[in-house]
Amino acid sequence: MKKINPSLPKGTRDFGPSVMLKRDYLLNTIKNIFSLYGFNAIETPSIENMEVLNGKYGDEGDKLIFRILNSGNFTEGIEKTDIKTISNIRTKISKKGLRYDLTVPFARFVSMNRDKITLPFKRYQIQKVWRADRPQRGRYREFYQCDVDYIGTKSIICENEIINLVFSVFNKFQIEDSIIKVNNRKILAGISEVFNFQNKFDEFCIIIDKIDKIGLEKINQEFVKINLSKDSINQINKILLLKGSNQEKLDYIKKVLVKSKIGKEGILEIEKLMKLTSKFEFDLSLARGLSYYTSSIFEVVLKDKNLGSICGGGRYDDLTEIFGYKNISGVGISFGIERIYEIMEERNLFPNNLDQSNDVLISYLSENYIGKSLEIANTLREKNIKVDVYSENNKLKKQLQYANKNNIPFVIIIGEEEIKSKLYTLKNMKDGTQKNLSIDEIISKVSR
Amino acid sequence: MKKINPSLPKGTRDFGPSVMLKRDYLLNTIKNIFSLYGFNAIETPSIENMEVLNGKYGDEGDKLIFRILNSGNFTEGIEKTDIKTISNIRTKISKKGLRYDLTVPFARFVSMNRDKITLPFKRYQIQKVWRADRPQRGRYREFYQCDVDYIGTKSIICENEIINLVFSVFNKFQIEDSIIKVNNRKILAGISEVFNFQNKFDEFCIIIDKIDKIGLEKINQEFVKINLSKDSINQINKILLLKGSNQEKLDYIKKVLVKSKIGKEGILEIEKLMKLTSKFEFDLSLARGLSYYTSSIFEVVLKDKNLGSICGGGRYDDLTEIFGYKNISGVGISFGIERIYEIMEERNLFPNNLDQSNDVLISYLSENYIGKSLEIANTLREKNIKVDVYSENNKLKKQLQYANKNNIPFVIIIGEEEIKSKLYTLKNMKDGTQKNLSIDEIISKVSR
Repeated sequence: MKKINPSLPKGTRDFGPSVMLKRDYLLNTIKNIFSLYGFNAIETPSIENMEVLNGKYGDEGDKLIFRILNSGNFTEGIEKTDIKTISNIRTKISKKGLRYDLTVPFARFVSMNRDKITLPFKRYQIQKVWRADRPQRGRYREFYQCDVDYIGTKSIICENEIINLVFSVFNKFQIEDSIIKVNNRKILAGISEVFNFQNKFDEFCIIIDKIDKIGLEKINQEFVKINLSKDSINQINKILLLKGSNQEKLDYIKKVLVKSKIGKEGILEIEKLMKLTSKFEFDLSLARGLSYYTSSIFEVVLKDKNLGSICGGGRYDDLTEIFGYKNISGVGISFGIERIYEIMEERNLFPNNLDQSNDVLISYLSENYIGKSLEIANTLREKNIKVDVYSENNKLKKQLQYANKNNIPFVIIIGEEEIKSKLYTLKNMKDGTQKNLSIDEIISKVSR
Repeated sequence: MKKINPSLPKGTRDFGPSVMLKRDYLLNTIKNIFSLYGFNAIETPSIENMEVLNGKYGDEGDKLIFRILNSGNFTEGIEKTDIKTISNIRTKISKKGLRYDLTVPFARFVSMNRDKITLPFKRYQIQKVWRADRPQRGRYREFYQCDVDYIGTKSIICENEIINLVFSVFNKFQIEDSIIKVNNRKILAGISEVFNFQNKFDEFCIIIDKIDKIGLEKINQEFVKINLSKDSINQINKILLLKGSNQEKLDYIKKVLVKSKIGKEGILEIEKLMKLTSKFEFDLSLARGLSYYTSSIFEVVLKDKNLGSICGGGRYDDLTEIFGYKNISGVGISFGIERIYEIMEERNLFPNNLDQSNDVLISYLSENYIGKSLEIANTLREKNIKVDVYSENNKLKKQLQYANKNNIPFVIIIGEEEIKSKLYTLKNMKDGTQKNLSIDEIISKVSR
């Protein structure tokens, strides 16, 4: 066989044991909070039929979907002229693609399982997604998404529960400068109504969504491009820059939208939410990029940091309609766990003992003691202690080095004396001390 | 948007909440045992470069790899004549593929991270793999593999630990008719030496591997095809059909292989293992299909059931060589968790309480009590109780139906009386009884 110099595909990563311990901690903590809030896990396949994925993420999104080549004789039916038209041949030779997000597959799941599930239906989903994006620092082609959604209910209780859940997660992780921002697409729709540009509403949202990245001045240039008047832009600027308490902002926007039916609906929803919780900041400059949001929208950012959002979501009133299931409102949020991981790593927020994967290493001074070593290992394992048994017939020094490199805090050393006396040497790898102890004493020493 | 009738790609599955609870139980139990044995998790990308995957699984395997279409203008450089040669165009337009198993990516990982890891290195890996196989009952195109491996050690302790670990897993799951079968490729190599067909060794192993599926008679027909003499076939039949204790089989094969150096090495390894553990059945008809095994091989089957193996693995002496990392012996085993799931489901071996995902539902008799309901929900969550809050403004009957359909064992009903008296109605959904209790009493009642 020809030798090869292996490499990873662009934008993908291996996770070694120490990273995995932290990732598992992060995900398990989030999963636990999801279940306390009554959400249950589901999983969908990584592969979806292209017709499920196509057209859901805009033109730009469509280009970023990884497509899977049909198996077998995939060129059957392909004409020579086809290879000149990329989109044409692409459709013929690849009928499946890798999941681009978790929301569209969830809408497909709900539509296909409508007879089996009870509405309102609550689910969480933590799985990989793939995007043929240009890889950058913190942006990957294969990464996890972590979503929680309600479907089949319009109740504002959902928004409140989601806000509480998000608060619980960041509180648990001690990311204390996180702020939950909330706005309502109906309020933005009201603005577009009052200033007479309803036909440009989607563009308007996409432009506002860029405010943190490109700043107000460039936003205004883009407003000009979609033909907003100078006066409208001035008034919209006032709205976007509004400071003060949630109530003060609400009072201001109420006056602006006094003649807009949809705007007043949005205001009513925010008011209801304010009665239930004060854990969010009402932010009229929040818009979100995706076109399927129709009401509440959320984003979590870090105060005074221009890092972008670490969590985002909203309410969508008809995502399942395309799959033939009408009038099903849903609301959900997605945790940007890759970014959250980086923040926790930078700020040293992972628990200290995460780097020690195993509790104890069993070392032996000669191959004759292997049987006894394995016996002791199994006794400790029955007590829920994580035990590594050194496998090579190496000198003790090398065995201790192995313990050190793997951050194993204790080593049990087994030799002739130990077996005779039934007192085994327990070496503490942190301070270097060692003691002769019975198995029971060892168990109580090394248990976490 | 055009409406579509969504479907799942062939051989893929959605997992709803009740299946996920069981799958999570299965995987978490296995993970926990892996860590007790000192194995740590790693993850590798789902996507690998084709040069990493190609040629590792035989010609048949290569055809079953799902290939990913290059992004962007993938037809660049393709000539019109190329579309007539499928293998040619395939290589040009798809440079990446979906992972086919976890062993080759692990070998790639070890080779690429040789400076970062300490040998011997132990890892477990539970991730999806994809195969463009013909879907059948119990065989999918997307499924989980669950592997545990040692690398960088030739010690027989590894084999012993793996056998103990496998024993612990099936013991935990109460699959009491599981048998761990062990053989050694060196013994099979010895047989091929003694009967003079070393050049047909790989075919020999592939043929023996089919014995459970097609029976001895057809096996013998295939032996004839690879030119084994009638006398050799007779003697090999005796070996394959050998009954008795591990020691009796060993005594028999020792005599057969007395002149084979490699055969005697294999015997020595089995003897060493027998000294350490009696938890396996030495089975001379065990061969395994994959060509990379070089020494110990394992398989777990159910006694008296012709179900095929539910777990399999072995030692490979140079899987990393192709990636430029020489003389690195590894040994591991893979749990067939899809099959294990089915067995547990058939035999009703999952714990009974797995169908109840949430501990309690909070119902309210009017929207006025939502605030209080949410407050109680958060109090219970702080006590680690899984709480669902009913979100729609429906009649109590409907709320109780929701609890029933979702297998929620308790409902807290909140109305005016309850708020006044601070004694809330707790309804037991199994027996229909209800009591008025304080929050503290409710907490102790509904905690698991």
